Amino acid sequence: MQASASAAASRRFVLGVLSALPTLPAMFGATAAEAQAATPLPSWHDGPAKQTILDFVKATTDRASATYVPPEDRIATFDQDGTLWVEQPLYTQAFFALARVHELAPQHPEWKSHDPFKAALANDLPALAHLSERDWAEIIFATHAGMSQADFLEIATTWLVAAKHPRFKRLFTELVYQPMTEVLEYLRANQFATFIVTGGGQDFVRAYSQRVYGIPTQQVVGSSIVTKYDFKNGKAELMRLPKLFFNDNYAGKAIGIDMVIGKRPYAAFGNSTGDQQMLEYTGTGAGARLKMLVHHDDAAREYAYGPAGGLPGSKVGTFTQALMDEAKERAWTVISMKNDWKRIFAFET
Amino acid sequence: MQASASAAASRRFVLGVLSALPTLPAMFGATAAEAQAATPLPSWHDGPAKQTILDFVKATTDRASATYVPPEDRIATFDQDGTLWVEQPLYTQAFFALARVHELAPQHPEWKSHDPFKAALANDLPALAHLSERDWAEIIFATHAGMSQADFLEIATTWLVAAKHPRFKRLFTELVYQPMTEVLEYLRANQFATFIVTGGGQDFVRAYSQRVYGIPTQQVVGSSIVTKYDFKNGKAELMRLPKLFFNDNYAGKAIGIDMVIGKRPYAAFGNSTGDQQMLEYTGTGAGARLKMLVHHDDAAREYAYGPAGGLPGSKVGTFTQALMDEAKERAWTVISMKNDWKRIFAFET
Repeated sequence: MQASASAAASRRFVLGVLSALPTLPAMFGATAAEAQAATPLPSWHDGPAKQTILDFVKATTDRASATYVPPEDRIATFDQDGTLWVEQPLYTQAFFALARVHELAPQHPEWKSHDPFKAALANDLPALAHLSERDWAEIIFATHAGMSQADFLEIATTWLVAAKHPRFKRLFTELVYQPMTEVLEYLRANQFATFIVTGGGQDFVRAYSQRVYGIPTQQVVGSSIVTKYDFKNGKAELMRLPKLFFNDNYAGKAIGIDMVIGKRPYAAFGNSTGDQQMLEYTGTGAGARLKMLVHHDDAAREYAYGPAGGLPGSKVGTFTQALMDEAKERAWTVISMKNDWKRIFAFET
Repeated sequence: MQASASAAASRRFVLGVLSALPTLPAMFGATAAEAQAATPLPSWHDGPAKQTILDFVKATTDRASATYVPPEDRIATFDQDGTLWVEQPLYTQAFFALARVHELAPQHPEWKSHDPFKAALANDLPALAHLSERDWAEIIFATHAGMSQADFLEIATTWLVAAKHPRFKRLFTELVYQPMTEVLEYLRANQFATFIVTGGGQDFVRAYSQRVYGIPTQQVVGSSIVTKYDFKNGKAELMRLPKLFFNDNYAGKAIGIDMVIGKRPYAAFGNSTGDQQMLEYTGTGAGARLKMLVHHDDAAREYAYGPAGGLPGSKVGTFTQALMDEAKERAWTVISMKNDWKRIFAFET
């Protein structure tokens, strides 16, 4: 449990820091949005992937189109890790969990000799990239539960404003793919509601989704743990318990979309086998549907893995050959980071 | 299971019927919305309840206000049954379940001698109003599961376009409280996202929420059953199983809000003990928060129950004296249907 008084004090500090950070509107502004309206997707090379997006938007928003979609049904869903931002060598949330393990280790002397915590304390990234889901669940429950939702939000936010990626030496929140930011903005400019549908923890993503993607918490669907209602001294809080509530991955993504959004998406973007069912579910709908997979084939600017080879045995971002075959069979569009994207990050010159 | 071919044919029929029904924009139109912008809440008598709503909106949307709230955080949650529309003598979804029991009875000869189905087949409304939650769960599982989400949507829609209330002889979807429709529109005109947070089944409510309230499916949070992903012959569907997934009532309302919306509402409207925790959770937040309870004290125009007396022993809409006491203690606003509302339904002249 977090001490509430210090939590409140540090909440004020964090909010102060956040207000000094650049935000999406400040970074892109009305002028950039207007420019995109004239020439959308400027960080994309002309080619089939970009054209597929442009054609889809015309087919669903032009009132004269036979496949026109009313605005309230314009739903676009995006996987996060590996689709909107970097997921290697570990998911960002895994780095956060590692930091929490180090922070909490003095209260858990048994962790020194007990895997998976032993590997976490040794910062053994290759070993951690091969951990099973069960091992990660153990780490997540030990580091993400036992506090209120408000305190968890603050712990995550505090970490995010300072933590940097080991290779890029940038804040994790800067490692967003600029071409995908443009897709989010382009779809929103065309009255699509953009949702993140992540196998990661939805409360972790909600700590930055508005600031980083312009996506409010109510448009973030993800995995979650059980919470308990707690009403004391006239104050109501939700307490986080070390128990899985919902696994928003694989078939869970289709179920989570139906549960939270309640309608079939018209567009879905993913990059791994965890996104397979979301794309199948999207593709089953009538009319024009956009199904896209980001393929990491650019080791120089980012990473190459999946069918592009590299990172053998890692459990992070599993783009199998079977997924590539299904994409071909069902006419899903595979985005080549190397060939379709002019630049990958906003900070590139 | 529903036969898919006939389901598809009747889906086309239902969509045809729906397109002929009046919709919110047609019923109220831009002109009515504009009129409301000048004189909001026309069906409310001037008084403390109306003034509380007006003051709250000013306090949260005026940029000069110390309690200003950015648009992405403007969340308002509404219970449905008894708060947005009539819930007596039974919840609308209970009438739907009864119709389904009659429809499915030939396949279940054992129901004739087995309660709660026996009471349902006898249309014994007083007995049904006293059924336990466990009995209703049995009826819901028998009538709401065993089909795909798409087929359930169609079954519910087909019933809704024809079913009428036993006392008012109107479509259930016409029994929406006009003053609350005006609150929804007024809040939305001030950039609040309006969510339904119901103890009822979220998939049932989603069948009409857009058409009746202007609330899209993604802004409906409710109780739900387990669904299973099913991928056959290149088609992905979600199948409904007879098992509770989430009970969005009492503490479940606060948990459901956090799970789906991910932030504390600024405004919450309810009318029963099932809404108590939602109002407590809303009231715990800093700044200006609107907490309102609809009190049914108008037997002539609608119903009188709860502290107003009437309907003793009914389990439908439990507004206890303890809830009234808590409202007083925490300065929640109690809306008197009799004294605060000029008219109750849009069809009143």
